[in-house]
Amino acid sequence: MSRLPVIVIVALLLTPLAWGQSIEPAARAYRKAHGAAILSEFRDLLSIPNHGRDTENIFRNAEYIRQQFARRGVEMQLLSLPGQPDVPPLIYGRIDTPGATRTIGIYVHYDGQPADASKWTNAPFEAVLYTRSIEDGGKRREFPEAGETIDPEWRLYGRSTGDDKAPLIALLTALDALAASDIAMTSNIRFMFEGEEEMGSPHLGQYFEQYGDKFSDVDVWLICDGPVHQSRRPQIVFGVRGITSLRITVYGASRYLHSGHYGNFAPNPAMMLSQLLASMKDEQGNVLIKGYYDSVEPLSAREQAALDAVPDIDDQLREEFGLAASENNNESYLSRLLLPSLNIKGLESATAGPTARNVIPTTATVAIDMRLVKGNDPRDMLDLVEAHIREQGYHIVREEPDRKTRLTYPRIAKVTRGSGYRAARTSMDLPIVESLVRAANRASDEEVILMPSLGGSLPLYLFEEKLNTPTIIVPMANHDDNQHAPDENIRIANLWYGIDLLGEILTMRP
Amino acid sequence: MSRLPVIVIVALLLTPLAWGQSIEPAARAYRKAHGAAILSEFRDLLSIPNHGRDTENIFRNAEYIRQQFARRGVEMQLLSLPGQPDVPPLIYGRIDTPGATRTIGIYVHYDGQPADASKWTNAPFEAVLYTRSIEDGGKRREFPEAGETIDPEWRLYGRSTGDDKAPLIALLTALDALAASDIAMTSNIRFMFEGEEEMGSPHLGQYFEQYGDKFSDVDVWLICDGPVHQSRRPQIVFGVRGITSLRITVYGASRYLHSGHYGNFAPNPAMMLSQLLASMKDEQGNVLIKGYYDSVEPLSAREQAALDAVPDIDDQLREEFGLAASENNNESYLSRLLLPSLNIKGLESATAGPTARNVIPTTATVAIDMRLVKGNDPRDMLDLVEAHIREQGYHIVREEPDRKTRLTYPRIAKVTRGSGYRAARTSMDLPIVESLVRAANRASDEEVILMPSLGGSLPLYLFEEKLNTPTIIVPMANHDDNQHAPDENIRIANLWYGIDLLGEILTMRP
Repeated sequence: MSRLPVIVIVALLLTPLAWGQSIEPAARAYRKAHGAAILSEFRDLLSIPNHGRDTENIFRNAEYIRQQFARRGVEMQLLSLPGQPDVPPLIYGRIDTPGATRTIGIYVHYDGQPADASKWTNAPFEAVLYTRSIEDGGKRREFPEAGETIDPEWRLYGRSTGDDKAPLIALLTALDALAASDIAMTSNIRFMFEGEEEMGSPHLGQYFEQYGDKFSDVDVWLICDGPVHQSRRPQIVFGVRGITSLRITVYGASRYLHSGHYGNFAPNPAMMLSQLLASMKDEQGNVLIKGYYDSVEPLSAREQAALDAVPDIDDQLREEFGLAASENNNESYLSRLLLPSLNIKGLESATAGPTARNVIPTTATVAIDMRLVKGNDPRDMLDLVEAHIREQGYHIVREEPDRKTRLTYPRIAKVTRGSGYRAARTSMDLPIVESLVRAANRASDEEVILMPSLGGSLPLYLFEEKLNTPTIIVPMANHDDNQHAPDENIRIANLWYGIDLLGEILTMRP
Repeated sequence: MSRLPVIVIVALLLTPLAWGQSIEPAARAYRKAHGAAILSEFRDLLSIPNHGRDTENIFRNAEYIRQQFARRGVEMQLLSLPGQPDVPPLIYGRIDTPGATRTIGIYVHYDGQPADASKWTNAPFEAVLYTRSIEDGGKRREFPEAGETIDPEWRLYGRSTGDDKAPLIALLTALDALAASDIAMTSNIRFMFEGEEEMGSPHLGQYFEQYGDKFSDVDVWLICDGPVHQSRRPQIVFGVRGITSLRITVYGASRYLHSGHYGNFAPNPAMMLSQLLASMKDEQGNVLIKGYYDSVEPLSAREQAALDAVPDIDDQLREEFGLAASENNNESYLSRLLLPSLNIKGLESATAGPTARNVIPTTATVAIDMRLVKGNDPRDMLDLVEAHIREQGYHIVREEPDRKTRLTYPRIAKVTRGSGYRAARTSMDLPIVESLVRAANRASDEEVILMPSLGGSLPLYLFEEKLNTPTIIVPMANHDDNQHAPDENIRIANLWYGIDLLGEILTMRP
């Protein structure tokens, strides 16, 4: 019996110190003590509607956030663009740390997707707490009293809980935690909070041009957005796919024709479009357009190794989506994401429902989005698609074809090119990567996953091209947070992870 | 100078008699003298709205028509179906002619397509007169006074002017003309006026079963519906295409997926459907489905000869429709109509307009109609299409696939089979054909076209199968009457032709 205390002492002295977990980290201890207050402050932040075109409210969000950071002693500014008073402000903030040799940028966006209240279980801007997810039969409950135990499986519902106000409340809490423990930060910090990310960041480039000086000293931008891995393990993500899009309309007769009188005589644009689309991909989902895969930049050995270490969730995804098979004979999900995609997002010709009339449609239209990977240039990729369309015998126009054009060319395709941007992929060899991995591993009980690229797109190329600064994504939300959909939520365990992670990041050693 | 009168006298004595045009036919003379009154009566008939589901008004139409024929001494009955009081009545009438050896049925429908008044230049049920077609810059004008000269290029606008109340007013006028001249009819006549043709004649078969006796003595049914030839020459039509339809829905994931996160992994149903459709036809519009053309019954030598004599309007059609080319390398319009068609009437998957979201759609749906020709059985043709779908690797379901089905079959197609009916084609060797041709040639300055089949569909198979009686279509409306569309109209010359034609038919010799 007398030996046990000795072992305990040894354990306290050695193990924790060796792994950096000897003393409970400041952020974790703080949020454990103040859980109720954190959720209450989060509720206040979530109560301000935040669609980027709801000008009054998006400015209220910005001002509220400025004040909350100012209360913690962080000097914040609401940047605006000259002559564009309705553009949501870019919130800029800085913390200068004496002796710091590194400047870390932290990006969050405070705007959210539109919320159609009629499709939500509860009002989207009155955050409510559930004992677990609604899909899993969670029950609504009161917010906790101070000191009450908080179950990490609880979910907080409301627009932007997961995407993307959680990092804001996590940052505020981390600052509180450091202040409460009197722990110094280790880096200079620059904040950038955007107010129209969900609208495609239409002014971010202008902000960078206007205020580049304010951001010029940042060594790396940490993008706090998006979900952790579907396995619930934390992840650090080094890239995103780029994106571009196009819309193609093909033409039949200039007016609806009776399918009896003219079926078999007048070409059917829906069939023409089907044939055109079918020529673009094989039945396994591989793109057949000449050169489509040629510019893809291969993974480095380190990236490949990281990829190989990512847990395989393919069966889980197929099961979840109700799919007996996925593309290219069940080729791995992650490999597929490293190729440019060509996705039909919508297809329309007359109407196919019960009210369909016996006509030959006049036009057929497809909307396509293309996700791009490292090496793909959006314009070049669109050029390849257009070359393919021409190769199928089409005359390409940019406006509705006039009579003469119609009578000249048997196949006419109106192609409307979308804008777009390149993929971004930051090298895993960057010096800060090791510190970040350590920080994430300290903030979580599970080992962090290093992901070379997400399938989705963010305009991270702007940081690379206009600020000349690499980006790394450090997400915190649960993958099942109903991002962009009704009943958006955050799992409390993920909010806690976010607080702990940002506490670690603010205090991490080089 | 002295020889001219001799020539004129010879001409009067020989040519007209030889061609049966010596004395101005009764109907022609009558309508020349009573044009204003005819238009006025037509206006009254057109003022009663006549959609088949507008029960009160469709009955008003029937009763009005019954009265107008009764005023001419024709005994008419409004037939109804037991227990189905809302079904529009089938109007039945008979004229027995002493000594007649032939009984001619005359079919007209008194219902019309729905009319969306907001899309019409004038109210659809307040007939108005124009100096020519609105598209040609015609001006609205008053109805003529009695005795005023009527320009045959005038157009009367209103729902069902062309489709299909014109034959009713033409019949009434022809009866008036014969009575005024005291000319006897030469055949027994049976009238059948349907009140829901535009709804697909859903009860015509039941009427035939219920009242078959009333129609059993008819030798041939003359279907007074549809337009004359696009060249404006009169035509007699011996057949129509049959029709059937199907709707196909193919499935991707069971919920909308983010095209970034899952594009290239989750199969895209819009692309799958495009590939399926592309497999059904070649780029020239020819159907590739196995056996699709196998059951087509070839034309007889006489039918082929008639077809060869039809004026070629293909260039005119392409020009009118704004088409640089038509299907199968500009193969002749009439040859194309003698093949079964496979027409996409609508195609839908998510949305392709400016609001298209970056998703992988969950389903894609196509509505197809198939026009059938002599020899094709609707069910057999649908079976061929289904066999083709299966050959492309699809598992066919009839209801939304459940989870287990989705997880079992990589390719699932829900196929909804429409009903349908066979084509009809009456032999040109029927004894009455010669009389009819003579009647039409007497009623028109231009030579009648004999058309083996129209491209469109009418349920004439019912007459063949349930009444065991052949049908011949004797149309009168102008082809550019905006049938089924806003601003439906009839060209006065075509109304006059209809009156003259029916006058000839009622009095034609065997």
